[in-house]
Amino acid sequence: MRFGTLNIDGHATVVAISEDGLQYREAQELLPGFAGDMSDFIARMPVPPTEAAQAGAWQAIAGKQLLAPIPVPRRNIFCVGKNYHEHAKEFSQSGFDTSATKGEVAPSAPVVFTKAPSTVIADRQPVQSFPDITTQLDYEAELAVVIGKPGRGISKADALRHVWGYTIVNDVTARDLQQRHRQWFLGKSMDTFCPMGPWIVTADGIDSATLGVRCWINDELRQDANTRDLIFDIPTIIETISAGISLQPGDVIATGTPAGVGLGFNPPKFLKSGDVMTISIDRIGTLTNRVE
Amino acid sequence: MRFGTLNIDGHATVVAISEDGLQYREAQELLPGFAGDMSDFIARMPVPPTEAAQAGAWQAIAGKQLLAPIPVPRRNIFCVGKNYHEHAKEFSQSGFDTSATKGEVAPSAPVVFTKAPSTVIADRQPVQSFPDITTQLDYEAELAVVIGKPGRGISKADALRHVWGYTIVNDVTARDLQQRHRQWFLGKSMDTFCPMGPWIVTADGIDSATLGVRCWINDELRQDANTRDLIFDIPTIIETISAGISLQPGDVIATGTPAGVGLGFNPPKFLKSGDVMTISIDRIGTLTNRVE
Repeated sequence: MRFGTLNIDGHATVVAISEDGLQYREAQELLPGFAGDMSDFIARMPVPPTEAAQAGAWQAIAGKQLLAPIPVPRRNIFCVGKNYHEHAKEFSQSGFDTSATKGEVAPSAPVVFTKAPSTVIADRQPVQSFPDITTQLDYEAELAVVIGKPGRGISKADALRHVWGYTIVNDVTARDLQQRHRQWFLGKSMDTFCPMGPWIVTADGIDSATLGVRCWINDELRQDANTRDLIFDIPTIIETISAGISLQPGDVIATGTPAGVGLGFNPPKFLKSGDVMTISIDRIGTLTNRVE
Repeated sequence: MRFGTLNIDGHATVVAISEDGLQYREAQELLPGFAGDMSDFIARMPVPPTEAAQAGAWQAIAGKQLLAPIPVPRRNIFCVGKNYHEHAKEFSQSGFDTSATKGEVAPSAPVVFTKAPSTVIADRQPVQSFPDITTQLDYEAELAVVIGKPGRGISKADALRHVWGYTIVNDVTARDLQQRHRQWFLGKSMDTFCPMGPWIVTADGIDSATLGVRCWINDELRQDANTRDLIFDIPTIIETISAGISLQPGDVIATGTPAGVGLGFNPPKFLKSGDVMTISIDRIGTLTNRVE
C-alpha cells in the first residue's frame, strides 16, 4: 500500500495512493476528522492501515501536485554514511573523506549524520545548484526507512516491527563543503538537497534486504546495487540509532548510497545545471529531479 | 528582557520573565489570542517586544515549573565544534577527534553538526547517563544563539539583526560514541543530552562577543573563558550556516565550548552519576543539571 501527501486545493493532504499511482483517497476517510500531516497520521496509525485503505472510493490524481511524502519532517533526517562496501572504498580513496583513518575501507560502526528538514523537496522539484558556494555537487541514491512505532533500545530482532514503510531519498551533497567543514552536515543540508518520494510504500510484504537500487544521470546508469550489499543492515541501523535516541513516528532514516557517485569517477563526474537524476528502487518507485 | 516557557496548569506557555526571574506575564497579553509555542512566538515577533513586555501585570513563578525555553525545536540544534582555540587544542591532542588532520590545531572553517530536538531538557532536569552504552560522558558549556528574522545568504554585517536572543546549552557528549561513529551526531544526540535555558535573553543590549562563560562540576571550576576567544565569531557562524540553509525563527545555534571539558584532563575527568553541572554565562543566567 502507498501513502503520500497531495496538494489538494492548496492544502498538503495525506492520501492513500493506488497501485498504479494514478488515484488517491484522503486519509480522513480512514480516520474521520483527521486533518494532520503524515507524521501525525503515522503516529495515529503506527501499523499502516493497508487493508482499510484498499476499500472505498478513489479519485484521480491527475492535475494535482504530489508533494514529498513527509514535506517537513519533525526533526532532521537521520543518514548513514559509507554503508555499501564498494562505495566506502570509492569514498575513502577519493580523498574527500576527512573522517577515514589511514588505510580504512569499511567503517567499523555505523557513521550517522543528519540533513535539515528544509532540504526536503518532492519528485520533479528542482535541486538548487548554489554555483556561488559549491562546484562539486553530487548525488546519492538511497533507500529510506520511515519509522512507525516509537521506541528506544530497540533490538535488531524487533527493529523491523518499528518500520512503517520505505521511500526513496537522494542525499544530494556539496563535496567541497562536506570536506572543508569536516563534519558532513553543512555540505548535506543546503535547501533542496533531499528529494524524497514519490510516496511511502508500507512495510508489509517488502523484503528491504533484497531491493535493487539504481541511479541514472541523464541516460547514464551510474549506480546499480542491491540492499543486500549494505555493510550495516536496517535492523542494525535501527538498533544503533535507538540505543540512545528515542525514535519517533515519522522519523526518516536514509540507509546509505552504493558505489557510483560522481566523486568515485576519475576524473569525478559532478552534477551540472540541467542534469536529470533518476533513482529507481525495486518495489518502491522512481524519483526524478533536475538540477536547476 | 527575558522570555521562557512555563508549565501553567499542564500547558507549556510562552511567558515574559521579570529581571529577578521571579515573575511572569503570559505572551498572550502581548499577542491577544496567542496560543503557540516559542518558535511560533518568535515567528510572530521577529523583533522581540521588549518594551511592551515590561508593562502590565506580573504573576509569581513560584510553584510553577520552568521548561526549556524551546522545549521541542522544529529541527535539530545547529552546533559548532572546536570553536575556542584552547579547546580545539585539547580536543585535537586528546585522540578523540576523528576529523582532525595530523598536526591540526584550529579548524580552517566552522565545523557544524547537530543534536536532535529530543535531547532538550530544562534547567534542573536530570541528564541520563546511559551506563550500558557509554563510560565517557562529558559536558560542554556553550552560549547559544536563537534566530529571529529568517534568511539565507546572510552577510556577517547583517547577521546580528537575525538574532532574537541568547540562551545557554550544555552540549552533553558521549566521547566514546563520538569517536566510534566518526560523525559526531550519535554521541551528541542521546535523549536528555541538551540542557537548555533557563530562558532566552533578548539580543538588545547584549554584546555577545564579550561574555564570560563558566562551568563547574560540583564545586570545581572547569571551564572559564570569554566569547571573545571564539575562533569563528557569531556573525561568521551565521554567514556560514545561512550560505546554503535558510535560517528560520526559533533555530538554535550552539556556538562551541571553551577548554576545560573532561577529556582535556590527564587522566580525563568524565562525568559520574550524581555530578552536578553548573554553567553560568554573563548577562544570560545559570543552568544547572545533575547526572542521573
